[in-house]
Amino acid sequence: MIKIGILGVGTVGTSVAKILEKNSDIIEARAGKKIVATKGVVKNISKKRDINIKISNNPLDIIDDPQIDIVVELMGGVKEPYELVKKALKNGKAVVTANKALLAYHRYELQEIAGDLPLFYEASVAGGIPIIGALRNGLSANHIESIVGILNGTCNYMLTKMINEGVSYDEVLKEAQDLGYAEADPTFDVGGFDAAHKLLILASIAYGIDAKPEDILIEGIDSITQTDVEFAKEFGYEIKLLGIAKKRESGVEIRVHPTMVKNSNPISKVDSVMNAVSVVGDCVGETMFYGPGAGGDATASAVIADIIEIARGNRGPMLGYKRGLEGKKLELLNSDDVSSKYYLKLKVVDKPGVLASVTSALSKESISISSILQKDSKVENRVRLLLTTHECQEKDIKRAIKSLKALDSVGDNVSLIRIEE
Amino acid sequence: MIKIGILGVGTVGTSVAKILEKNSDIIEARAGKKIVATKGVVKNISKKRDINIKISNNPLDIIDDPQIDIVVELMGGVKEPYELVKKALKNGKAVVTANKALLAYHRYELQEIAGDLPLFYEASVAGGIPIIGALRNGLSANHIESIVGILNGTCNYMLTKMINEGVSYDEVLKEAQDLGYAEADPTFDVGGFDAAHKLLILASIAYGIDAKPEDILIEGIDSITQTDVEFAKEFGYEIKLLGIAKKRESGVEIRVHPTMVKNSNPISKVDSVMNAVSVVGDCVGETMFYGPGAGGDATASAVIADIIEIARGNRGPMLGYKRGLEGKKLELLNSDDVSSKYYLKLKVVDKPGVLASVTSALSKESISISSILQKDSKVENRVRLLLTTHECQEKDIKRAIKSLKALDSVGDNVSLIRIEE
Repeated sequence: MIKIGILGVGTVGTSVAKILEKNSDIIEARAGKKIVATKGVVKNISKKRDINIKISNNPLDIIDDPQIDIVVELMGGVKEPYELVKKALKNGKAVVTANKALLAYHRYELQEIAGDLPLFYEASVAGGIPIIGALRNGLSANHIESIVGILNGTCNYMLTKMINEGVSYDEVLKEAQDLGYAEADPTFDVGGFDAAHKLLILASIAYGIDAKPEDILIEGIDSITQTDVEFAKEFGYEIKLLGIAKKRESGVEIRVHPTMVKNSNPISKVDSVMNAVSVVGDCVGETMFYGPGAGGDATASAVIADIIEIARGNRGPMLGYKRGLEGKKLELLNSDDVSSKYYLKLKVVDKPGVLASVTSALSKESISISSILQKDSKVENRVRLLLTTHECQEKDIKRAIKSLKALDSVGDNVSLIRIEE
Repeated sequence: MIKIGILGVGTVGTSVAKILEKNSDIIEARAGKKIVATKGVVKNISKKRDINIKISNNPLDIIDDPQIDIVVELMGGVKEPYELVKKALKNGKAVVTANKALLAYHRYELQEIAGDLPLFYEASVAGGIPIIGALRNGLSANHIESIVGILNGTCNYMLTKMINEGVSYDEVLKEAQDLGYAEADPTFDVGGFDAAHKLLILASIAYGIDAKPEDILIEGIDSITQTDVEFAKEFGYEIKLLGIAKKRESGVEIRVHPTMVKNSNPISKVDSVMNAVSVVGDCVGETMFYGPGAGGDATASAVIADIIEIARGNRGPMLGYKRGLEGKKLELLNSDDVSSKYYLKLKVVDKPGVLASVTSALSKESISISSILQKDSKVENRVRLLLTTHECQEKDIKRAIKSLKALDSVGDNVSLIRIEE
């Protein structure tokens, strides 16, 4: 029998305990061993819970218990779980975690500390979708060319509503908060940070790159307006918050931002709270993995899959590479060297010659325009100018935007969304 | 170092040998060991091959070679590979196979013989999509509710062409043969047998059911006409060859047939030679896996992923369940007890009262009609009558068709396509 202790018995922890009981027949058959959750640790022990495990508020009741074989960490946060996971590993316990923030910051140290002990984390990215297994095992023969994912269900829910129902950002945020999809302080989701944590984990398995959230380009969806949505529709795009990791000749791009995606691209059809990850490998070509990115039972499905793998005795390098054998290390590209096509949104003064001054400012910075749309609706004697560019580098578009802002007829009224074909 | 011998060095075998060389850096880093293909066995040794391994025409050169660690079986057929795989396992070698026909007939005997030796087969279903890993590992906490898959690229290519370009079945079959997607004798693909072999493998992992192709309902795409395609379009369906395994209260349905799929269902959008598998689990909800179902490099990607897993020392029960621990065994439902909605296509004599006699014949067999369409175009004084039913059982629809055929105004001119919402 394998005994599980759960640190953090919230929505996911409760699902883990319940499913281990409800599906115990099939889980035993698949694992080859009975698996039982025996202990849970919570902050508030007075809260009533309808699960059948011993509850305490002291993590050491699990971590120092020689009876516990696997510690499941579902606390959230970084500092406290980091200390507890380290301690659990030092006590010789296997660890399963769904904590993407912890891994975004400490995955390589934890790999070092874990050594031959399993530290599994399927649930940390895209909830119930077995994307970690796919990258670590199923696609392991491939040099990965790109990963493009919808990794945050809250943002995808909000963008889908804005696009399909014309709801404003503020309205849909309130709705998402009422439904429990978004927190009272939604920054972690809508700011792109949650998606960035997940993308960094995937990029480690694909490319062996040890980057932190601070090292990569992260933009959230809070600046998306109905103007952008309407332009996107007019030109056959959907707007999605994408996590993108791409191998280029000089290194690997890793970035998270709202993205215009052609509506012929299957990932553009992934709506509401669903997640999807497209992975292109040099042998396999394009694959895509789709499913629920959050929710207690879906996330617990991934946590228990890891527990079963551990029970079967399966190991393998935590981040997909045997340390010391990575070969030629791939480097993280500087954010300024990222290449993309861009959509630019300008509010310009409505007078003759403005269009000419805008296009010539872009042309001087070698930015080539692909399409352009002037919108009639005027506010404060200004008109909307929406345009898309051919592929160029982030540093060039930034310089071009600086030039545009220097024009009297434009000023600060410039923003961009990146385009993925 | 791990040494690989390849039985059958055709398209896939050549890709395996080439990728092991081309991607050796990353494969070694991921496997933790150098992996080298050293020997291949072929029928025709005089044929020129641009790969760097020792070629012979005697399988025992690999199977009896104590230097070979893993035997990769890519021969096709059933009888010969069965004997050779058995012998390889008895010689203590790990085996990786892409041979779905072999597994459709002998997976349980081979599991018995393999014992603790790994016998892996990711490449046998859906080419490069890691669907075996997803079912065996990633979704192992779930009772699987259903598997619905596009598992044969040839059929999907042909149906996509028929639907999007209005090409006839005979024309598109010829084209598929010219492109190398279909064999000179295309029965194995267009008859649904290839998809059935793959579905039986997936159903074993999901349900522990040991069924043979003869035990399940298999229908091919060779009876699909432009009339069906037009009807499908008119009512918002696509036509796909689907493999379907579903848990019902009384057992498990396993069936392969052309299917009308609502065009709002994501699987209806999977076009051309691509494969996709939707898996619904009781914890995770719906997941979907998409990618190339055939091709040398994509299939080799899956073969090598298995090799890397073996090199990492990972095992686990071949078919997902520890033998003897399956619990309450699920039973295969008889084909007659399968439930579905149906599309019926009739050619009826164009005279008053015929519609009444058709609908009353159906009503007598308790078949309830959902939609009906009479097409004007007349051949031999007959008109097309196309209708869909509400859900009923296979045995009821069969009895109803018998009653319809007994009507003078209908005769033998009745056929059906099943509908999946």
